[in-house]
Amino acid sequence: MINIAVLGYGTVGSGVVEVIDSNNASINRKSGNDIRIKYVLDLRDFPGDRVEKILVHDFDIILNDPEVKIVVEVMGGVEPAYTFVKKSLLAGKSVCTSNKELVATHGPELIRIARQNNINFLFEASVGGAIPVIRPINSSLTADPILEIKGILNGTTNYILTQMDVEGWEFDKALSTAQELGYAERNPEADIEGYDACRKIAILSSLAFGSNVKFEDIYTEGISKITATDIRYAKKMGYAIKLLASSSVENGRYFAMVAPFMVRSSHPLYSVSGVYNAIFVRGDQIGDVMFYGSGAGKLPTACAVVADVVDAAKHIDKHIYTFWSEEDLHLTGIGDSTRSFFVRVSGNRAEREDEITKQFGEVKFIELDGVSDEFGFVTKPLAEKTFEEHLKNIPNVIGRIRMEEKLNAGC
Amino acid sequence: MINIAVLGYGTVGSGVVEVIDSNNASINRKSGNDIRIKYVLDLRDFPGDRVEKILVHDFDIILNDPEVKIVVEVMGGVEPAYTFVKKSLLAGKSVCTSNKELVATHGPELIRIARQNNINFLFEASVGGAIPVIRPINSSLTADPILEIKGILNGTTNYILTQMDVEGWEFDKALSTAQELGYAERNPEADIEGYDACRKIAILSSLAFGSNVKFEDIYTEGISKITATDIRYAKKMGYAIKLLASSSVENGRYFAMVAPFMVRSSHPLYSVSGVYNAIFVRGDQIGDVMFYGSGAGKLPTACAVVADVVDAAKHIDKHIYTFWSEEDLHLTGIGDSTRSFFVRVSGNRAEREDEITKQFGEVKFIELDGVSDEFGFVTKPLAEKTFEEHLKNIPNVIGRIRMEEKLNAGC
Repeated sequence: MINIAVLGYGTVGSGVVEVIDSNNASINRKSGNDIRIKYVLDLRDFPGDRVEKILVHDFDIILNDPEVKIVVEVMGGVEPAYTFVKKSLLAGKSVCTSNKELVATHGPELIRIARQNNINFLFEASVGGAIPVIRPINSSLTADPILEIKGILNGTTNYILTQMDVEGWEFDKALSTAQELGYAERNPEADIEGYDACRKIAILSSLAFGSNVKFEDIYTEGISKITATDIRYAKKMGYAIKLLASSSVENGRYFAMVAPFMVRSSHPLYSVSGVYNAIFVRGDQIGDVMFYGSGAGKLPTACAVVADVVDAAKHIDKHIYTFWSEEDLHLTGIGDSTRSFFVRVSGNRAEREDEITKQFGEVKFIELDGVSDEFGFVTKPLAEKTFEEHLKNIPNVIGRIRMEEKLNAGC
Repeated sequence: MINIAVLGYGTVGSGVVEVIDSNNASINRKSGNDIRIKYVLDLRDFPGDRVEKILVHDFDIILNDPEVKIVVEVMGGVEPAYTFVKKSLLAGKSVCTSNKELVATHGPELIRIARQNNINFLFEASVGGAIPVIRPINSSLTADPILEIKGILNGTTNYILTQMDVEGWEFDKALSTAQELGYAERNPEADIEGYDACRKIAILSSLAFGSNVKFEDIYTEGISKITATDIRYAKKMGYAIKLLASSSVENGRYFAMVAPFMVRSSHPLYSVSGVYNAIFVRGDQIGDVMFYGSGAGKLPTACAVVADVVDAAKHIDKHIYTFWSEEDLHLTGIGDSTRSFFVRVSGNRAEREDEITKQFGEVKFIELDGVSDEFGFVTKPLAEKTFEEHLKNIPNVIGRIRMEEKLNAGC
């Protein structure tokens, strides 16, 4: 019998209780142990609910109960989650969390404390919802140094971009629909400005490269400026616009960024639609490996948390070594990274062609049917800083979107 | 320092040595230990080779050396691999293997011996080459019972089918090209008749369902009867022909099979081409999760083996619980499983329409441009046995291929 406590009875927390209740026999078989929820911590009361009798309001009850071996933290936010998690680990209790803010901010310290106490700090659910990606990076892709990670890590923005693409909606309408359906929060900033994806790629990159990637250092651009017209250009070229989070190492220099990209239809990420997530991991010798699945949702996320509980139960008194040191990794600014750019400018193409090719050399022009007061063009691959220098010399720029063209996959 | 021995210096074995040599620093960091290859076992000599001085011809030297903590078995075939692996485990040495025949035949017994000796028997490389799928099933997808597995598990046949599709080649030409390129063996039977995929789905299904799925019980049909004309029909309908390995549980009944299927272009497996593999796993609550990557090849497979070595090194004296009992799982015959079928018949469509609809009710007819002496049709979903009964009443059948139409993915 292993007693656990669940901190937070919100969406994910109630999902964790539901998954453990409904899959009890299977979970006990797979963990080789009986998993019992002894406490649920929440400030609220839930009269008549299944957890009514095990609900506590005081974290110290959990902390001081030596029977509790595993603490599930699904409150979200850095505080009080950080305080509770750190105290739990110091008290010799393993912790499983879905909290990407906590992991991105304090991951390496919490991993060290877990190691020092021969217990575990597990966080599979913090990235990619139900998709196993943390554990594969930590335990399966260990033979070959990881060179690049690239993925769609935020289901909300992917849903919004998919709806804009399929329905022709403007951003605001797609966002409000996402909010109505519960895919976006009332304050959607963390998702649509890319902050959520930024924390997730910081976590994956830290695990891949072994040193701490600070999320504050990652260049991050959201999707709130993407318009229905941008998407019309993308479709005309055979592309989709996706919010990509990526990191890579080239010649000893590390790069990371989050931004909307034009993704070609032959790219495997092109067809990842709705709230799905997908993550590519590239190694020198293994080539590309991709993981795909539900990136969010109550039960998928809860299943990822509960799988960590099963693993923690299988590793009571045995730390699973995690390769993420507290030393910060120096990220090179994105100015040196090279790619093609799509640019929209006002005016008439015939009148402005010379001015544009003078700056960018040969480009590919795109015009939309029935639109005469603007046009677009795609540059050859350029360093970000070179592109920005030339762009300054072009008046009346409506917008620019990066092109994703470095494809390494076989399909 | 952890000493390992590599049994077999063939393609995968030499890859294992190469990966450990070239990624030594990174592997040691990730395993938290120094990994050293103390012996390589092979019947042959390799004068001048890197392994010349550590080569042994007698397995007992390895068995009797208490310094050897991990044995890597990459010889292939059931014997003498089984004898060597069993002796190694009984002597308290963990074993990592890429040998799907060994795992499919003796997996649960070897897992039990490892458990009894508090060591590990790991076999990530036996399925899906570089793709992490065994460990995710065993350690990440544990919260939610797995309902279905479906995948392209054999790179050789996928390469052959891709070439037939892209180049319009007949099977024989695609096979001989695959053999020239080293993607197919001189005796290609294990691949093209589906035996390799059969063993792999037996392994995945055993892990997913927890009881032993005997590969001999799995209905298996290869691709050697697929013709260029079949592929022309598939293309005309917007499908590709793929060798799919699958298993599922429905209302307490377990199904498993390997056979060529027509896969619709909107299905994520449609675009998995060449030697790539992809595996879908469906849970009740997590929905579909997909894993994709290089399904074979010397270095990708070697990386999967070495990742197991890293995990075994992280788990010296700690058994990682694997959910695969020695009890055999009863598979229900495929007669009750339901799907649509594509059928090719000789003759003229107009003359034979009545005869066919009399047997199958409403069907969808397909004719190829410039072909007048045969045509095809697709049935509505039928149980396999019902389909076969009706098909008996239709003379001059050229062939039939199953249709894959139960898609649960979001893309």
